[in-house]
Amino acid sequence: MAKPEPFGIAIVGCGTVGGATARLLQSEAARLREVSGTGVYLACVVDVAFDHARSLGIDESLFRTDMAEPLADPEVKLVVELVGGTTVAKEIAAKALSAGRHVVTANKALLAHHGAELFALARRNGVTISFEASCGGGIPIIRALYEGLLANRIDALYGIVNGTCNYILTAMVQSGRTYAEALGQAQRSGLAEADPALDVSGLDSAHKLAILASLAFGRRIDLDRIPVEGIDTLETLDVAFGRELGYVVKLLAVAGRGPDGVSLRVRPSFIGLDHPLAWVSGPFNAVSVYGHTVGHTMYYGRGAGGPPTSSAIVADVIAVAVGAYQHTFRSLTIWPDLTEPVRQLPMEQIESRYYLRVTVEDKPGVFAQLATVLGNHRISISSVLQREPSEHIDAPAADDASDRATKTREDSSQVTAVPVVITTHRTNEGNVRRALAEIDELTVCTRPSVCINIIDEHEETI
Amino acid sequence: MAKPEPFGIAIVGCGTVGGATARLLQSEAARLREVSGTGVYLACVVDVAFDHARSLGIDESLFRTDMAEPLADPEVKLVVELVGGTTVAKEIAAKALSAGRHVVTANKALLAHHGAELFALARRNGVTISFEASCGGGIPIIRALYEGLLANRIDALYGIVNGTCNYILTAMVQSGRTYAEALGQAQRSGLAEADPALDVSGLDSAHKLAILASLAFGRRIDLDRIPVEGIDTLETLDVAFGRELGYVVKLLAVAGRGPDGVSLRVRPSFIGLDHPLAWVSGPFNAVSVYGHTVGHTMYYGRGAGGPPTSSAIVADVIAVAVGAYQHTFRSLTIWPDLTEPVRQLPMEQIESRYYLRVTVEDKPGVFAQLATVLGNHRISISSVLQREPSEHIDAPAADDASDRATKTREDSSQVTAVPVVITTHRTNEGNVRRALAEIDELTVCTRPSVCINIIDEHEETI
Repeated sequence: MAKPEPFGIAIVGCGTVGGATARLLQSEAARLREVSGTGVYLACVVDVAFDHARSLGIDESLFRTDMAEPLADPEVKLVVELVGGTTVAKEIAAKALSAGRHVVTANKALLAHHGAELFALARRNGVTISFEASCGGGIPIIRALYEGLLANRIDALYGIVNGTCNYILTAMVQSGRTYAEALGQAQRSGLAEADPALDVSGLDSAHKLAILASLAFGRRIDLDRIPVEGIDTLETLDVAFGRELGYVVKLLAVAGRGPDGVSLRVRPSFIGLDHPLAWVSGPFNAVSVYGHTVGHTMYYGRGAGGPPTSSAIVADVIAVAVGAYQHTFRSLTIWPDLTEPVRQLPMEQIESRYYLRVTVEDKPGVFAQLATVLGNHRISISSVLQREPSEHIDAPAADDASDRATKTREDSSQVTAVPVVITTHRTNEGNVRRALAEIDELTVCTRPSVCINIIDEHEETI
Repeated sequence: MAKPEPFGIAIVGCGTVGGATARLLQSEAARLREVSGTGVYLACVVDVAFDHARSLGIDESLFRTDMAEPLADPEVKLVVELVGGTTVAKEIAAKALSAGRHVVTANKALLAHHGAELFALARRNGVTISFEASCGGGIPIIRALYEGLLANRIDALYGIVNGTCNYILTAMVQSGRTYAEALGQAQRSGLAEADPALDVSGLDSAHKLAILASLAFGRRIDLDRIPVEGIDTLETLDVAFGRELGYVVKLLAVAGRGPDGVSLRVRPSFIGLDHPLAWVSGPFNAVSVYGHTVGHTMYYGRGAGGPPTSSAIVADVIAVAVGAYQHTFRSLTIWPDLTEPVRQLPMEQIESRYYLRVTVEDKPGVFAQLATVLGNHRISISSVLQREPSEHIDAPAADDASDRATKTREDSSQVTAVPVVITTHRTNEGNVRRALAEIDELTVCTRPSVCINIIDEHEETI
């Protein structure tokens, strides 16, 4: 057999993921060339500083500070963009593509914002962009969508796609910690950034949902039109009530296809214990995909971290090195530069079941008032959970400012306020929002109500 | 854009899976051509009878009784082999490959027995064999191994890969049914064949393990050297004791890589409730794969049935139609015709934890005898479960002939026999087998002991 052509890789950005990728390409160099039958090798690592790269033992002779160097090397066929953000990263990707180099990236923000433009640029230059590492870390979920499930019309997709949030929520559910305590624990374990906003706000999950849904539906997704709620306002009281009702709270990225369009959202959601996603704990991620002929499939693994993410990056690198991905990229028509915008349902039309917690004065006739408002908005009640006044103290105390305000009001008025938890049958979100706005105006209502989606097992169509 | 070249598909064998595949290719014809950017179409269905095909509404003009017809049609580029078995199926595959047609198959027995030969034949003829549908129905686990996880050294693989067995075991665990009752229920639901031997004996799972492990380790697997135990001898008593200890019983196909070689086996095994595989219920399948850099990943979905399996088949068809899989097939060196035989550990050297149930006379000093034998064989006890004599009657009654024999012996001797359940720390199977042989010889032992693997969460190396 002829010796395969050298296929040089330049890694740009040597942080956690870049460093792990460089290490993987170096430590497994011989085996990777053997199993892939290619001449794949790490040609260089481009960054402004190399302390981290040095600490990982990466060959110092590969360090470069200017991307022009690898782009001048005809053996470098592929650039791995791992600088993050959307400005410098976009410049790097565009430079590499324009120079006829394939690009592999883990950058979900870059793709969610500039996917269509970069894909078109790649196509004009006869090269490709791959992005397995952009969603779900090392889980091969991207190729499951563009390849393994391609024969399906995708009906729905539910993802736990942010490991930081899942770690925090798992601690809240399993140990009864408050959000603030669980966040602190995650930060001490290195599982949350000092500034956790991108993760806990749900924005990172929205970037990933935009990418996953664009492949699942073969349509372009407008990131700005995805409703996003984070986990940072979640109260332990609701976590505890949810458990009592048989639900676990997860930050879910949800996409569903109905006759009138696609619904998309990122939200803390209750999911039943009989759903496999309920068991995805700690920093793990998972994505459930429902296809019209395959039914329910799920993909599970570590959603972040250097070594798992490097697994996805190198998988992409090899698919290009063997020449397979070029055909997929050229032939399929589901890529962001080739697709039409999706028809997205307005939030009011999203259908779901709901968990509602209203805090009301504990006196006769109050429940009738609530039930009347819900009935007027055509919301049908599935279950009610109301404790004896003394009993609800056993639930972990709520821990936010509004709750302290409530307590003051209780003290001064000498009337006990109690939480009433109501779960609804399937209804649309417009009805629920209008009903809650009305309930919050009732004089018996002592603090703003809480509303959480309940995600039932999606019904398989097979 | 130029109109893509026609890419005709011939389906040979129109049973459950063949019929579903023909239907999928027909009902989704326009969409599949559009998303794949290819001219893929169903050219014909070859079989000896067409009652089933007709009942599914497949276009009668496509029915053929002779495979020579599609092979004479230059537009037919790919043959889907779905006749099953290993004799006619092998002829069909060989004929198609020799005629320069790609082959897609769901036939695990064919591949486990004749994989190397058929792959070599494909290579000589410049065509490919794909087999996503051979393991795990619609779950894209095969491409996860040859593509998504290719950067990893695979440390271990645990699979629930037979839906019939998982359905039966789920019924035994959740409803306390006996094996015979659960099998009957599965047969009435169409989830078990009238002759369930291939499934319940574990042989079908062994075929799949041979395929999965060959890709995971890039080595050839000798099917005949995989130790196989089925679920047909499993007693409800052990299912119940396992639950009490926090385990669920699953028929697991297990592959592990150690410094001295690879261990392979198919067996009813106990798995802890904290492992995601424990929650895979009913007819669903799942495969956990542990890679050296990705850590634990899991793939879940329907492991059988026409529509899910057709999803995998059409994914393979499209990967060939777009021209991607040809590169993967040509370049990678992990295929059965290119790999060396695996170095397989003898059963005695397999390391695991074990659940042992011995049935002994209820009198002083008996436990000391058991403990002495185990100690002599360097087996360290992790936990012991022994009930008061009256209490063990609460456990579901064992339901096999040997148990009735035991009861008779109890009655006549006036000595109560009690089950003693012992779980061990990690040890090797040789030690356990030798110890149990000795224990079964003890005069206090009233019936043969039972031994079940306990599968702990594989420790991630990342």
